[in-house]
Amino acid sequence: MNVHDLATPALIVDVAAFDHNVATMAAARPGDRLRPHVKAFKSTALAHELAVAGHRGFCCATVREMVGMARAGLGHDLLLANETLDVRRLQALTTGAPDARITVAVDSVETVETAARGGVTEVLVDVNVGMPRCGCEPADAGRLAERARSSGLEVRGVMGYEGHLMMAEPAQKAALVEQAMVALLAAHADVGGDVISGGGTGTYAVNRWCTEIQAGSYTLMDTQYGSAPLPFRQALFLLLTVVSVNPTGGWAVADGGLKAFSMDHGPPDVLGAHKVWFCSDEHVTFGPLEGGSLPAVSDRVRVAPAHVDPTIACHERMHVVRDDTVVDTWEVDLRGW
Amino acid sequence: MNVHDLATPALIVDVAAFDHNVATMAAARPGDRLRPHVKAFKSTALAHELAVAGHRGFCCATVREMVGMARAGLGHDLLLANETLDVRRLQALTTGAPDARITVAVDSVETVETAARGGVTEVLVDVNVGMPRCGCEPADAGRLAERARSSGLEVRGVMGYEGHLMMAEPAQKAALVEQAMVALLAAHADVGGDVISGGGTGTYAVNRWCTEIQAGSYTLMDTQYGSAPLPFRQALFLLLTVVSVNPTGGWAVADGGLKAFSMDHGPPDVLGAHKVWFCSDEHVTFGPLEGGSLPAVSDRVRVAPAHVDPTIACHERMHVVRDDTVVDTWEVDLRGW
Repeated sequence: MNVHDLATPALIVDVAAFDHNVATMAAARPGDRLRPHVKAFKSTALAHELAVAGHRGFCCATVREMVGMARAGLGHDLLLANETLDVRRLQALTTGAPDARITVAVDSVETVETAARGGVTEVLVDVNVGMPRCGCEPADAGRLAERARSSGLEVRGVMGYEGHLMMAEPAQKAALVEQAMVALLAAHADVGGDVISGGGTGTYAVNRWCTEIQAGSYTLMDTQYGSAPLPFRQALFLLLTVVSVNPTGGWAVADGGLKAFSMDHGPPDVLGAHKVWFCSDEHVTFGPLEGGSLPAVSDRVRVAPAHVDPTIACHERMHVVRDDTVVDTWEVDLRGW
Repeated sequence: MNVHDLATPALIVDVAAFDHNVATMAAARPGDRLRPHVKAFKSTALAHELAVAGHRGFCCATVREMVGMARAGLGHDLLLANETLDVRRLQALTTGAPDARITVAVDSVETVETAARGGVTEVLVDVNVGMPRCGCEPADAGRLAERARSSGLEVRGVMGYEGHLMMAEPAQKAALVEQAMVALLAAHADVGGDVISGGGTGTYAVNRWCTEIQAGSYTLMDTQYGSAPLPFRQALFLLLTVVSVNPTGGWAVADGGLKAFSMDHGPPDVLGAHKVWFCSDEHVTFGPLEGGSLPAVSDRVRVAPAHVDPTIACHERMHVVRDDTVVDTWEVDLRGW
């Protein structure tokens, strides 16, 4: 099938750019030095490609992602890099996937108890390294590890996500990441274990302290990460049809909006010398850049999302495209909760 | 089941508030004077409730919504209040739902031809009344109606959505809506037909020119519409679990984020004297308002979304709650494309 025959809106993956991204990261962080984060793409089909590239362990953000990965035969070493209080869901995971290796992040007595009651046997102590989100204070990590061990859990090490530094100024990024990782290493000294997990697409190149990097966005990219000096290419696009054109007003309207891409990092880019005017539920209204011209009704346009993770979560599938031919379909099978 | 036993994140509907909203609108716009817009809630179960309240016709924004409504026995009078160039999807709709009455909006020669080739027999001429989106110029409406009739289509009338006026200042709203509707009535004079369709939750009370109002958000509401002087109550909430608390930093983290609510109208409200700090893919980080206190790990919080339509589109189902008891489940069965 030709990409032009797809019904729109359709999420498409430029597989040449995707392959470049995967190979580039695999060269920098081969094998188990990368633990790709499934939350970015929510697709076991895409995860299989990363396993083929040599990465055997994965991060997940939800228990449903963990269940889906285990069912898809990708349960070699799954980390729930997130806190949960849901004993029932953890029990369903651990009993339903007895062959999978399941590790869960904990940052409190409550999450330790949840893991133990949920049948989990291995944990990482999640340490706050500067972003106001999950993770215990570094000074509390050792005590929490003891508590976990006394609950019968194996403590594999620590995790600390420097998410606030992903888009830090390049000149300062390494120093800021070092500062965050010094806190993580101090916690690790109290906790023990083989694993120091952290990092992401924005810091993988400068974070030399973590034993494994939790990156996912690099596979498909978005315009925010695209604005940083990273060696990855935009591989994810939303294909839209122009459904209305107003030559008097100087605008065109395409058939994808707030239900087809996320706006938390701002509006997406409409490629081809167009400027987004505004986005509504089912539409993007855009005009030509200076000197450009309006498209015609029924023309196709490509849109690059500003934030990959919540954009993919809007869709049921990605169409994999090489030279305008649809060569594969990747179901977004890990959505929801 | 008690609402506290739901796994989170969970979308919940306060059915008392929902019933109030439905009854209030049905009193103001009874029966066919309201054509509820399915795009707001994407659920045939919810649409059934509106049919019971007396509204037999519905608007949709996507062909998939049209197909789903027809299959659910709600095809009495379905309007695709949106432009499409997708002949295949229209054919699947018209051949798959021979008993449904299907009307489609058109605003160009191309959309007229698409409707005719797709087996549609009735159209409305969509007229631009001031918002830079779909709709032909008012002066072109008569010519387009002629073109539709010459293609064998029945022209039922006009449609014009004054979306740019939904949140207009109350003192000016009526005059601004009148201005927009004067343009629509001029187009209607050239087009003919029985239907003048337009309006929404923000203008239903002042738009006395349309024969039917296209409102949907009033059923469940959001914090943006909640900031306007409207007689509807917030009926939709996201139920979350507090998964991490940092007493030193003064913040708490709950387990729903950018994949569970939309951010295009800003962050959601965390109820109960809390203030949102920021939202990330799977989390909302929040602190107490002055004088308030932090919740505890495993506490539940309720979040009111800023924009109802794209928030519901993030979810597979809504849990219908009365006095903390889950009394029903409404599948969000009209998602996707």
